[in-house]
Amino acid sequence: MENSGSHQETAVPPVEGVAGGGTAYGWSESGVEDPNLLRVSIDPLKLHSSNLVHAWCMPSSANVGPQDMPRTLEPISLLAARNERESVQIAIRPKVSWAGSSIAGTVQVQCSDLCSTSGDRLVVGESLTVRRVVPVLGVPDALVPLEVPVSQLTLFPGETTAIWVSIDVSNRQPPGQYEGEIILTAIRSDAESTAQSLGKAERHQLYTELRSCLDVVEPIEGKSLDEVVDRVKSVSSSLRNVLLSPSFSNLYLDNGSVDMMDEDATSNLSIRVKLTLTVWDFILPATPSLPAVIGISDTVIEDRFGVEHGSSKWYEALDQHFKWLLQFKISPYFCRWREGMRVLTYTCPWPADHPKSDEYLSDPRLAAYAVPYSPVVSSGDTAKDFLQREVEILRTKDHWRKAYFYLWDEPLNLEHYEGVRHMASEIHAYAPDARIMTTYYCGPNDAPLASNNFEAFLKVPEFLRPHTQIYCTSEWVIGNREDLAKDIIAEIQPEIGEEWWTYVCMGPSDPHPNWHLGMRGTQHRAVMWRVWKEGGTGFLYWGANCYEKATVPSAEIRFRRGLPPGDGVLYYPGQVFSSSQEPVASLRLERLLSGLQDIEYLKLYSSRYGREEGLRLLEKTGMYLGPERYTHEHMPIDVMRGEVFRTCQSETNL
Amino acid sequence: MENSGSHQETAVPPVEGVAGGGTAYGWSESGVEDPNLLRVSIDPLKLHSSNLVHAWCMPSSANVGPQDMPRTLEPISLLAARNERESVQIAIRPKVSWAGSSIAGTVQVQCSDLCSTSGDRLVVGESLTVRRVVPVLGVPDALVPLEVPVSQLTLFPGETTAIWVSIDVSNRQPPGQYEGEIILTAIRSDAESTAQSLGKAERHQLYTELRSCLDVVEPIEGKSLDEVVDRVKSVSSSLRNVLLSPSFSNLYLDNGSVDMMDEDATSNLSIRVKLTLTVWDFILPATPSLPAVIGISDTVIEDRFGVEHGSSKWYEALDQHFKWLLQFKISPYFCRWREGMRVLTYTCPWPADHPKSDEYLSDPRLAAYAVPYSPVVSSGDTAKDFLQREVEILRTKDHWRKAYFYLWDEPLNLEHYEGVRHMASEIHAYAPDARIMTTYYCGPNDAPLASNNFEAFLKVPEFLRPHTQIYCTSEWVIGNREDLAKDIIAEIQPEIGEEWWTYVCMGPSDPHPNWHLGMRGTQHRAVMWRVWKEGGTGFLYWGANCYEKATVPSAEIRFRRGLPPGDGVLYYPGQVFSSSQEPVASLRLERLLSGLQDIEYLKLYSSRYGREEGLRLLEKTGMYLGPERYTHEHMPIDVMRGEVFRTCQSETNL
Repeated sequence: MENSGSHQETAVPPVEGVAGGGTAYGWSESGVEDPNLLRVSIDPLKLHSSNLVHAWCMPSSANVGPQDMPRTLEPISLLAARNERESVQIAIRPKVSWAGSSIAGTVQVQCSDLCSTSGDRLVVGESLTVRRVVPVLGVPDALVPLEVPVSQLTLFPGETTAIWVSIDVSNRQPPGQYEGEIILTAIRSDAESTAQSLGKAERHQLYTELRSCLDVVEPIEGKSLDEVVDRVKSVSSSLRNVLLSPSFSNLYLDNGSVDMMDEDATSNLSIRVKLTLTVWDFILPATPSLPAVIGISDTVIEDRFGVEHGSSKWYEALDQHFKWLLQFKISPYFCRWREGMRVLTYTCPWPADHPKSDEYLSDPRLAAYAVPYSPVVSSGDTAKDFLQREVEILRTKDHWRKAYFYLWDEPLNLEHYEGVRHMASEIHAYAPDARIMTTYYCGPNDAPLASNNFEAFLKVPEFLRPHTQIYCTSEWVIGNREDLAKDIIAEIQPEIGEEWWTYVCMGPSDPHPNWHLGMRGTQHRAVMWRVWKEGGTGFLYWGANCYEKATVPSAEIRFRRGLPPGDGVLYYPGQVFSSSQEPVASLRLERLLSGLQDIEYLKLYSSRYGREEGLRLLEKTGMYLGPERYTHEHMPIDVMRGEVFRTCQSETNL
Repeated sequence: MENSGSHQETAVPPVEGVAGGGTAYGWSESGVEDPNLLRVSIDPLKLHSSNLVHAWCMPSSANVGPQDMPRTLEPISLLAARNERESVQIAIRPKVSWAGSSIAGTVQVQCSDLCSTSGDRLVVGESLTVRRVVPVLGVPDALVPLEVPVSQLTLFPGETTAIWVSIDVSNRQPPGQYEGEIILTAIRSDAESTAQSLGKAERHQLYTELRSCLDVVEPIEGKSLDEVVDRVKSVSSSLRNVLLSPSFSNLYLDNGSVDMMDEDATSNLSIRVKLTLTVWDFILPATPSLPAVIGISDTVIEDRFGVEHGSSKWYEALDQHFKWLLQFKISPYFCRWREGMRVLTYTCPWPADHPKSDEYLSDPRLAAYAVPYSPVVSSGDTAKDFLQREVEILRTKDHWRKAYFYLWDEPLNLEHYEGVRHMASEIHAYAPDARIMTTYYCGPNDAPLASNNFEAFLKVPEFLRPHTQIYCTSEWVIGNREDLAKDIIAEIQPEIGEEWWTYVCMGPSDPHPNWHLGMRGTQHRAVMWRVWKEGGTGFLYWGANCYEKATVPSAEIRFRRGLPPGDGVLYYPGQVFSSSQEPVASLRLERLLSGLQDIEYLKLYSSRYGREEGLRLLEKTGMYLGPERYTHEHMPIDVMRGEVFRTCQSETNL
């Protein structure tokens, strides 16, 4: 698999005939040319699938849309550390239609375990998963799970469909070369097999006929031989008719032997996509090096899934979301917007004295957690008592170093800032070492801290100190002036525990890295590259499930008006796409994870060779040079990762 | 139904909260709010369909794409003359997902006859047809037939699907108001009903069990009573087991009474779209007033459908295409490109002495036909003999006035022009009244007829006379300078039978009217408005089936490289979209038909009030003012048609 942009590279040649195009016929001879292809109806069980579909591989950073044009199929070769997820896509496009109606055809997708020469395995369903890439607003985004090891994919005429193959390598997986394959087989579509099965009305008729046979022979005791023989003859005749009926037509023609070919369509007619994975000895840290705290609206969950705040179903729903999100190496916090821009944020819905609290907050995958300022579920306590007790319990725990308080979203004027100070003072009274996080993109607008906006923004730490420890600023403020990051950092005092974090929300917009729908794949992944290069020590994103209000789990997803598409939405309710209740990740959430994993590679490299060399690696591979200068192709990412692997693997391994 | 552009009108409001969007939650309350909606699983048989889908109507000139946003559902009101086709679209978008897997759900589409108060009918399946709008390259274009009166439509999450409803009013249809409805009902999807039906393996088991029952009782003659009773008991027991098996589970629970609800899902839960059609007494002429001659590549048919040139299957294939295309009021000609830009064009594949010739050429719907210059299928005749005999036979016929010869596609230099003259002389030797058509967009480039290109182009009639009667020029030459049409016309001598026709092919491009994919609906329809306004008396289009070469009927459609998408393609092979062999029209072909019908309205109006008033009607409705100034909305079209109806209907009717 070579590099790849988000758009097709098959160039349209210059117009060869201005004279109406008629002479152009036959320019391209790359069409379906197999002389064995039946000219009228196509039986996929008799043809090699490569006659029916194009299949080719694409990197995880590519946006493979319905109009994407075929490329050459090449084997997949991936590199992964332990405790890492790597993904790749396989695009499929029909060359012909072979299904009866409205669709082009059905392809069976079958995956094997990946095996190493020493007999170790990455097991399908555990390590290896397959999802279908579903467009949202016409842009490939939702990743809807497919069953493994075998599932079916519907193809439409003139449309490219992609599947997303992920491999999760556990931290105990032995390093080595693993090999497996993904097998694509054009099959008869469900519609046709439906035609071969018995419908309700037919079944009902069959039932009635058999029932009357039974009625005829049922009360048989005490009947005379003649009568019994008559009845048996009648039943025999009925049964014969039933067996000769259309319900069984194609069966009795086979003399009772059922053609089992349908069940086992994988054969020498399949397209086999070879997948090689190198697992190396590096183990990504259980706790991500860079906390990425991501907001989850509890209100959205309450409305859509119909769970009442504080009910047992509510706790269950939040628990499901929390656990599902942890696999993406992010640190979720639940969020409710209150009056003004006050926010009530909490990572654990249960109070600190509940057993669940330790389970949540000491989970090694959680890099940071939000402590609520007031009760999440009213308990009779005053807010003050609640806060005091929470803090007193939590500060005794080992995981307290991960705690932060997020109280106000983007204070804009003196009153807002006063609100932050007030709450922070209260918290610090109970725990002087508590970390308050404040998000902002400007100073108070009614009391300018400096003569221009950027200078005023720079003075916020001085203005807020000691009431904030984590100064979390919008990347939008920096624009393409990366050098401004140095000015921001200069205002932060790490010696007293202060940190600089950043966030993206509506801004920055294209071409800067962000997670809006329709941006390039590398642009999504570069959000984290940017954080690492600028030197922030944490990252915040305001919402991962903030679609428009709905009161039915399967209601269509509508992005909130006034926001760029995809902003505030990193995953979807599973019910929108199937009967599954498991959330559905977006490509963008996967790319957030990939970006976090890239940071671990860069960090490993820097730990060996220094941060300057790490920055040089970013630059010399062309992966990331600045908010407007990052790769559009996948290749530099693989080059960076390959270089870290080459230079950092321990010599004892592989 | 109000006016409508090709894009969504639901405006996105200005951003209300710059502060991250969190406050925006609940802005729009237009979501699914029915408190009766089940919160977990949705049974479409228990809910009004309007809870599950949005449905709204759109005019035929709208391009309804997958991302189109819902509007209010209003009743449909149409006007049609006799011998006219009118179409309208119904867009459907799921509000929720109610199907088990990968799709949002299934909607049943049911149509009724349209009835007048006096008991006249427009019958479903004959007059009323329904097609599904299928995107090509992401743009709504192909119209794939749905079964009537009932069919099913699959909806996908977050995607708008449109159906195209057409009413063909015959020339014998009594004028009046007709009413009917199109009923949309959310139903359980096939996947679910499949789950309720018996698969092959289950059927096989059932077959085996019944077969063994039969074996037990079959040889019964001569057996003792005891043995017969034993056998009967064994059969009874087997039958009981069969009847209690899962194959019949939900049937015997109902005590044998089958729930027929599935078959008759239309109910008070359906969305009913009311359709009113006013048929007026005007009868569109059987023979279109403006000949629109459209090229069909016979080579494309030969390759894709695997029919050998001149074979009986070949004649059948051409016959099918010819008859199907006639319904669009166009005059097809088959076309083969030969050396240089010579073309062999012929409307009837059979020679003039074949009975099929008269059937084809005297068809009243055919406004013009191409006579081949040389044998289409070699017959042993010399080309010269063939031409002479064809002409001698045809010129005796009544339909000879419709004949033309199209010999060369866009001659570019003296040698080309000499070729035209040579062939034309030969034809005129046999028939001095034969019409030669020549397409061109410039004079000979090696012997300039004037000092600038446009002047040279204007001099072509003088240069070619008397070897051409139909001067067919590219609309591209005129650009937005409509006034140039007068200069062209000034060079034409109608008194000696000369005509001016026009054509579009690659050019002109947007914003001028043409039939490229992705242009506005009114832009497609305006191709014909332009012809009428400029005063041409005929129109040519080079190709309606000129997609890239393929040798399988169902091979995917690829547009030819170097041409704008859709150029040269007005319909598709049915096999690409379903098992049907009937060609599939594009929206653009329907809009070509609508444009031709608009010309009949304008012609009727002009015949009563003069051409100047006809032109004023175009202008005052805002329908068409020039190649860059035509309506983007549908409303002006309805206003124009309504005005013609109001002013031209005979007082005895309605």
